[in-house]
Amino acid sequence: MAINQPLPIQLHELVKRLFPIGRSLTGNGVRESLGIIKEFLPNLVIHEVASGTSCFDWIVPEEWNIREAWIEDPSGKKIIDYKDNNLHVVGYSVPIDQIMPLERLQSHLHSLPEQPQAIPYVTSYYQRNWGFCLTHTQRMNLLPGNYRVVIDSELGPGFMTFGELILPGTTPQEILFSTNICHPSMANNELSGPSVLTYLAQWLLDNKNLRYSYRILFLPETIGSIYYLSQNLRYLQDYCVGGFVVSCVGDARCYSYIPSSSGDTLADRVALHVLKHHAKFFHHYSFLNRGSDERQYCNARIELPVVCMIRSAYGKYPEYHTSLDNLDLVSPEGLYGSYQAFQYAITCMENNKTWRNTVLCEPQLGKRGLYPTLYARNKGAYTQNMRHILVYANGKRDLLTIAGLIDQPLWELLPIIDDLKRHGLIEDVTIVNQSGIEKCERD
Amino acid sequence: MAINQPLPIQLHELVKRLFPIGRSLTGNGVRESLGIIKEFLPNLVIHEVASGTSCFDWIVPEEWNIREAWIEDPSGKKIIDYKDNNLHVVGYSVPIDQIMPLERLQSHLHSLPEQPQAIPYVTSYYQRNWGFCLTHTQRMNLLPGNYRVVIDSELGPGFMTFGELILPGTTPQEILFSTNICHPSMANNELSGPSVLTYLAQWLLDNKNLRYSYRILFLPETIGSIYYLSQNLRYLQDYCVGGFVVSCVGDARCYSYIPSSSGDTLADRVALHVLKHHAKFFHHYSFLNRGSDERQYCNARIELPVVCMIRSAYGKYPEYHTSLDNLDLVSPEGLYGSYQAFQYAITCMENNKTWRNTVLCEPQLGKRGLYPTLYARNKGAYTQNMRHILVYANGKRDLLTIAGLIDQPLWELLPIIDDLKRHGLIEDVTIVNQSGIEKCERD
Amino acid sequence: MAINQPLPIQLHELVKRLFPIGRSLTGNGVRESLGIIKEFLPNLVIHEVASGTSCFDWIVPEEWNIREAWIEDPSGKKIIDYKDNNLHVVGYSVPIDQIMPLERLQSHLHSLPEQPQAIPYVTSYYQRNWGFCLTHTQRMNLLPGNYRVVIDSELGPGFMTFGELILPGTTPQEILFSTNICHPSMANNELSGPSVLTYLAQWLLDNKNLRYSYRILFLPETIGSIYYLSQNLRYLQDYCVGGFVVSCVGDARCYSYIPSSSGDTLADRVALHVLKHHAKFFHHYSFLNRGSDERQYCNARIELPVVCMIRSAYGKYPEYHTSLDNLDLVSPEGLYGSYQAFQYAITCMENNKTWRNTVLCEPQLGKRGLYPTLYARNKGAYTQNMRHILVYANGKRDLLTIAGLIDQPLWELLPIIDDLKRHGLIEDVTIVNQSGIEKCERD
Repeated sequence: MAINQPLPIQLHELVKRLFPIGRSLTGNGVRESLGIIKEFLPNLVIHEVASGTSCFDWIVPEEWNIREAWIEDPSGKKIIDYKDNNLHVVGYSVPIDQIMPLERLQSHLHSLPEQPQAIPYVTSYYQRNWGFCLTHTQRMNLLPGNYRVVIDSELGPGFMTFGELILPGTTPQEILFSTNICHPSMANNELSGPSVLTYLAQWLLDNKNLRYSYRILFLPETIGSIYYLSQNLRYLQDYCVGGFVVSCVGDARCYSYIPSSSGDTLADRVALHVLKHHAKFFHHYSFLNRGSDERQYCNARIELPVVCMIRSAYGKYPEYHTSLDNLDLVSPEGLYGSYQAFQYAITCMENNKTWRNTVLCEPQLGKRGLYPTLYARNKGAYTQNMRHILVYANGKRDLLTIAGLIDQPLWELLPIIDDLKRHGLIEDVTIVNQSGIEKCERD
Repeated sequence: MAINQPLPIQLHELVKRLFPIGRSLTGNGVRESLGIIKEFLPNLVIHEVASGTSCFDWIVPEEWNIREAWIEDPSGKKIIDYKDNNLHVVGYSVPIDQIMPLERLQSHLHSLPEQPQAIPYVTSYYQRNWGFCLTHTQRMNLLPGNYRVVIDSELGPGFMTFGELILPGTTPQEILFSTNICHPSMANNELSGPSVLTYLAQWLLDNKNLRYSYRILFLPETIGSIYYLSQNLRYLQDYCVGGFVVSCVGDARCYSYIPSSSGDTLADRVALHVLKHHAKFFHHYSFLNRGSDERQYCNARIELPVVCMIRSAYGKYPEYHTSLDNLDLVSPEGLYGSYQAFQYAITCMENNKTWRNTVLCEPQLGKRGLYPTLYARNKGAYTQNMRHILVYANGKRDLLTIAGLIDQPLWELLPIIDDLKRHGLIEDVTIVNQSGIEKCERD
Repeated sequence: MAINQPLPIQLHELVKRLFPIGRSLTGNGVRESLGIIKEFLPNLVIHEVASGTSCFDWIVPEEWNIREAWIEDPSGKKIIDYKDNNLHVVGYSVPIDQIMPLERLQSHLHSLPEQPQAIPYVTSYYQRNWGFCLTHTQRMNLLPGNYRVVIDSELGPGFMTFGELILPGTTPQEILFSTNICHPSMANNELSGPSVLTYLAQWLLDNKNLRYSYRILFLPETIGSIYYLSQNLRYLQDYCVGGFVVSCVGDARCYSYIPSSSGDTLADRVALHVLKHHAKFFHHYSFLNRGSDERQYCNARIELPVVCMIRSAYGKYPEYHTSLDNLDLVSPEGLYGSYQAFQYAITCMENNKTWRNTVLCEPQLGKRGLYPTLYARNKGAYTQNMRHILVYANGKRDLLTIAGLIDQPLWELLPIIDDLKRHGLIEDVTIVNQSGIEKCERD
């Protein structure tokens, strides 16, 4: 049935299917989630990295799995239960089964006084600890007395799991898409990311003769991208021409752009171009607002051309990192709009060639049937844009630059480019540099 | 008598004299117009280019001449007559003498529903066709019945005519001025252009020892400039330091600036400087708004430093390319303001030298009588500007840059430059590059 | 007692002590003033330059000293007396003792009709002359009759006096501070300058291991800096990395910034950074508003990186160059705010190193105690700024650039820099160029 649903609904359905699973940085929740994604992308490679593996300044942590966890109040009633919401347990909590007075319990409880209905998202990956998260309303109702606290978890040597899909194109230069699969039940940050990226990868698989290769990553945040960079940095610095962190892409609110650290890469130009024409309005943040794996991709001396072209950004919406970031927050339209934005971005990257006109001065378009032979005042937009492309196609400006000068979406110019190519009026002079790397020169 | 009239009136008189002539891309109307201009500029060279001559992507079209043309209504009354307004006939209409019902005639009629009192300007240079233009009011009053349609024209091998005047300066580097002589009875676009350019050329002839050479062109639009570039492109790319399309320069409305394709040439800097100080307010268009021969001069891979510093621009005023662009639309003041703007532009180009101070630190102006010896708070503008020039004259900034920094019109600084030169306080270090081409370096 | 007073009061006290002294371009008033400053800065070197010494376009003028001067009205009453206000006498007035009618006297009187209560500041350094300055109210009350005019002055061969203090740092690169000691009794322009600079030099002397050397100059305006540059130009062009003219730094009104002639030197960047964070609002003038010795330091072909980071600028406040620029106009707060601004500027220059992170990707701050191990939504500013520094520290951006990107005052980032250094997370890669000159590269 799902195959017949409109794509916006399918995107939302995948979020819904992944939502209840208890994910963390490592463990079976990640494996189960990647297994579902692999149903859509059979070539997805699932990697397992042993706990204790070094990567740059970090060590892959132990694997964490949890069966159940609850708090019983002094009357013996279960008042907090991991089964109700997996955010109730601090991520990486060590096992415990104790009775303790409320006063001692308090130091292991986390709530948000300013959002009394929200369960906060708390983790302690690199320091053994345990704790429960609850709404502030729940907390305020706790009566003095002895509470039984049970966390039935395992924390020990194991593996960190991640997914990788590489789609080879006609050139080794590649475009990176990266999302996270380490968040428990939260929808915008983060299940919107895996869902949109899964369907985007499917769409890429449907396209033949892609110019660029594509690298699609489903990683646990921070340690996942750090490990991945430790294995692939040199290659990515040589071949990655642009990348996108696919995170917070599900709510239908305003789009956001977070630049790369330098702010002037091809990915930055593409994201700004897409958002200008696809979104009209969008938040233009600075790199100070980075929040996901662009923190690693754009770090000093890594400096990959990676940007965020997303919806409500990290920490910029009140539901962020709480139980309020739920299935109501993301919508089919929100997910599908982001999916389209990435399609446009890919279309821009794939088609950002450098063209040179073949005829000096304006060509005679009329004799080729490209221009009305009877001159009168108003000409159509198609003809005007064709003339604008020709007047700028000097073999130095890439198409993105020309689309910017004309103030038209690059993707709407492609039929004109095809017409001009067919009539031999422009030729592709995209430069290949010494390293054999195609380079999009800017004017 | 004309010689005694003020120049604004003379400019308007020349427009009036040229107005009634039936011009087109080729033919005797162009020859007659150039003949009148040659009365003012005896050294104007009139070139004839044979039909069928190839130039880049184009072929010089056949020559068109027309004696008369009219439409008789079913009652035998002449309702449309070329004698009344030469816009009534579609340019390059083939001969015809037929009686046809209104329904068939309609497909050869052109009118503007949104401007019911205007006759539109329509041509069909490169596709044999015929047609009549009329006001929409006239068209709405046509009754069913048979109409006699007569166009007594000739379209066949002949010549394309254009005028060229080259004024040698002390350097081979040159400044280009180009206007059109192919428009029938329309005043702002285009008789303002030939009139202003004729008087500007006269003024240049009165100036001795011009630094730059000047190339003054009276061309049929598009095919004229394309042919001209096909013959002179390499030379112009080597020697043209700036150029101006002189078109739409007659109405007294707001000035307009259309940049070159790169937007940063010397001509761009000069036009912006002149308009800022001469016009206060002006439309700053993008190159997307090009409309006359700058389409060729600035085309990709031609890329001459040519701009438009004009009045109401192509297509930006309602009367454009209709019979409403008549003698009422242009005024002596409108024409003269444009004429002055070009004088200022020439003054800027001629005097845009690079100066270096000869004395380190501020010179002692007082001992040279250039500064009050008794110091008190307020000094005059002349002294202040002299000090500003000296403080910036480091041998790297050209005078246009310094005038911009001081926010004064370059032409008002020239007496100060003369004073400083006379006192030996600055020296000319304008750089001559390897090709022997003087180059105005910018800081 | 002064030693125990707060610094703002001390700054004001020094202005008050210097105020009554009759200074001019040369003479004993300058010597007396420098003598007082030397009490604070015992290593101050006092130079004497003989009248007639050539420097660039100028000659050091004769020395001027004055004992007394007055005007007696027809009734024998002293109506104008140098003892009352040393602005009453035109600077460099030649001796005179004459009786003359009011009509003749008028041509030697100077007043300001638009400020009738102000005595103007007038000098005639390079043309022998004499004159008196008075309020316009005084002048309006002069009755016809014979006036006795006495100026008991000496103008003849002597010396020009200036003070110089050089504080060697660990590098030969140096920072220049320059102020004037040639103004008679005016407070903002100019006694605020010597006072602030004296205490600033004392503060520098208290700092050990300064990175830069410091050159502190107390000069007569114009001729003093021209002479000084004629002796030290090449060295300053090689070694001066930034400089500040310390003038008009005493009123508590809005700060002002006057850029160097190029506007993009390290000193410009520092001044803008300091004023943005220290002052919030400030006048951003152009170099056209220069008025003190930056006229020489930034002159064409001198072009030292010198800026003005001052209070109410030359000619921009009504009291400028009149007797109204008195002790009421400057305040302890005004002086101290400027003093702090220079301290911040020095702190920025001294600490503007280029740092490179030592660990690829984000380092694990938690294991070093630099980051909370329990992750929850909000982190403190200290941690955030630390992460921002690390993400930008790519070995190409200097700290000033990074502080600008983070939008934090550089001086508030220094404890974080220390923490990061101590943990070995960043290393200093400030580049030393071929001439052995440390250079702060910008990204």
